[in-house]
Amino acid sequence: MSELSKIKEPVKEELREFEPYFRNTMKSKVPLLSIITNYIYRRKGKQLRSLLVFLFAGLKGNINRSTHVAAAMIELLHTATLIHDDVVDEAYERRGSFSINALWRSKVAVLVGDFLLSKGLLLAIDTGEYDLLKNMSNAVKDMSEGELLQIERSRKMNIDEKTYFDIIRKKTAALMAACVVNGVNSAQANEEEVDAAYEYGINLGLAFQIKDDIFDYQSKGVLGKPIGNDIKENKLTLPLIHSLSKVDRKTQKQVLKKLKQSKRNPKAVAEIISFTNDNGGIQYSVDVMNRFKDKAMQALSCFPDSEYKESLKFLTEFIVNRKS
Amino acid sequence: MSELSKIKEPVKEELREFEPYFRNTMKSKVPLLSIITNYIYRRKGKQLRSLLVFLFAGLKGNINRSTHVAAAMIELLHTATLIHDDVVDEAYERRGSFSINALWRSKVAVLVGDFLLSKGLLLAIDTGEYDLLKNMSNAVKDMSEGELLQIERSRKMNIDEKTYFDIIRKKTAALMAACVVNGVNSAQANEEEVDAAYEYGINLGLAFQIKDDIFDYQSKGVLGKPIGNDIKENKLTLPLIHSLSKVDRKTQKQVLKKLKQSKRNPKAVAEIISFTNDNGGIQYSVDVMNRFKDKAMQALSCFPDSEYKESLKFLTEFIVNRKS
Repeated sequence: MSELSKIKEPVKEELREFEPYFRNTMKSKVPLLSIITNYIYRRKGKQLRSLLVFLFAGLKGNINRSTHVAAAMIELLHTATLIHDDVVDEAYERRGSFSINALWRSKVAVLVGDFLLSKGLLLAIDTGEYDLLKNMSNAVKDMSEGELLQIERSRKMNIDEKTYFDIIRKKTAALMAACVVNGVNSAQANEEEVDAAYEYGINLGLAFQIKDDIFDYQSKGVLGKPIGNDIKENKLTLPLIHSLSKVDRKTQKQVLKKLKQSKRNPKAVAEIISFTNDNGGIQYSVDVMNRFKDKAMQALSCFPDSEYKESLKFLTEFIVNRKS
Repeated sequence: MSELSKIKEPVKEELREFEPYFRNTMKSKVPLLSIITNYIYRRKGKQLRSLLVFLFAGLKGNINRSTHVAAAMIELLHTATLIHDDVVDEAYERRGSFSINALWRSKVAVLVGDFLLSKGLLLAIDTGEYDLLKNMSNAVKDMSEGELLQIERSRKMNIDEKTYFDIIRKKTAALMAACVVNGVNSAQANEEEVDAAYEYGINLGLAFQIKDDIFDYQSKGVLGKPIGNDIKENKLTLPLIHSLSKVDRKTQKQVLKKLKQSKRNPKAVAEIISFTNDNGGIQYSVDVMNRFKDKAMQALSCFPDSEYKESLKFLTEFIVNRKS
């Protein structure tokens, strides 16, 4: 059994029920939409977000209709976001298959994203799940603000550690927190439990994003070299931010100059990665990530022991140890 | 006084109040967002949609806080849609100024659109305007379905008049109907009045889109030639659909072949326009548009005479007579 199926074990019945329900939420009478949503359904990913929703409702021993609504809404919104992302990034691949904009036109992809987004909203409205709707809308607002803040500050090459945490909290952690809060909320949690869930989600999200940012300096592309996409986009993330704080102003300027050249110069990418390694940026980031992971683990102690809690512990480890 | 300011006259106080309120709904602490939303605000268009909201609440003599919320939400959503449209169409101009994606990156434009969209949702949620939210989400769903249906059928060159009306009802008229329904709803209308408002909005929207589609065959670009954008995109609209129904199968095939060539061949565009004129497609479309306009006018008779109703009559004429 794979690690992920082990994690899913306590909610596997519910996930089996969830599949046709989720698929049904994407229905349309427009034939082109049916073809595309079928394609989306067949290539769906790990569905980590809905898994979090089910496990958190499970913690409270009360997985019910509202849990399914929350999970479906989150998957609809998340899917819509990924489709729009691929259009903007002109990415032609997603999870080893062609992206929607690669198979159809960009225009079609944007419209399919809009369709899924509105279906998600209608699902929450029609079932009267207004808290869910509010949490998710706030998370979308935070996401766009976080990404825009990152773009703005990266352009000015002006991100310190505090700003970095502010950015990734908004850009990534807010949505994770919304997932788990909606999960416990669906099972009628009390205030203390909602707070603990939020604490878990935020810290898991921070660890998740730091892991992603470390990947950029470590994971190997087809040629066995680190991918360095963030570097090429001049995104300042924790490994580099920390390393820059360890050197004098003159060296900082030299490194930032190299960063600007990195889009067209693969050698500059390699040099920045070396600089980051030499100045302890990777190790520091791993340490910080693990601290957030530990905080997430601690937040779980608010809930009684159960198979759901065990799964969440595995899931937390899985997220910081994942290889992609 | 311009025609539009005459139409705005009965609600000019309310519109003056609306401006700072609307501006405030776009607020963010992220500096880049403030810069961009200021830019958006300064280049805002005719704001026909919020005008419809205010005039319909005025018909019921009860413009209130809910009316302002409805108008702001609609403008936020509409603005978000236009920004996303410009990204997909790679349009670098909007209302005589640079588009957001021309001045900033596409990625930034998409994020700004997402931000405005979520602000619109939160506005409705925070004020408890759930009917507004539902109407608008349904309209967005209809819009995406209508556009995808048009893309699908145009590719197959398979649109009859019935399908055309189905498409433009979803793509354009549903949103207009949502605007006016939200307008009267904000003023506590009864069921009969909501039905009449819906009837007005749908018919106005159908007339509006037919007018747009006629423009493609008539309006003159910089070189004094019809623009023919729909033709180049192989979109089948009413003028051509009607003209095709007047000729034999062989001629139909020839014209559709020419349509396929039109993207690269300006002569083919001119020939299709001639064919459409010769077979009465333009005149027929004008007649159909006027029938929808008359139906919209009739729907207004449900409401007592007032300066708001007079303005709506002018607005209805303005929409079918506009020159751009």
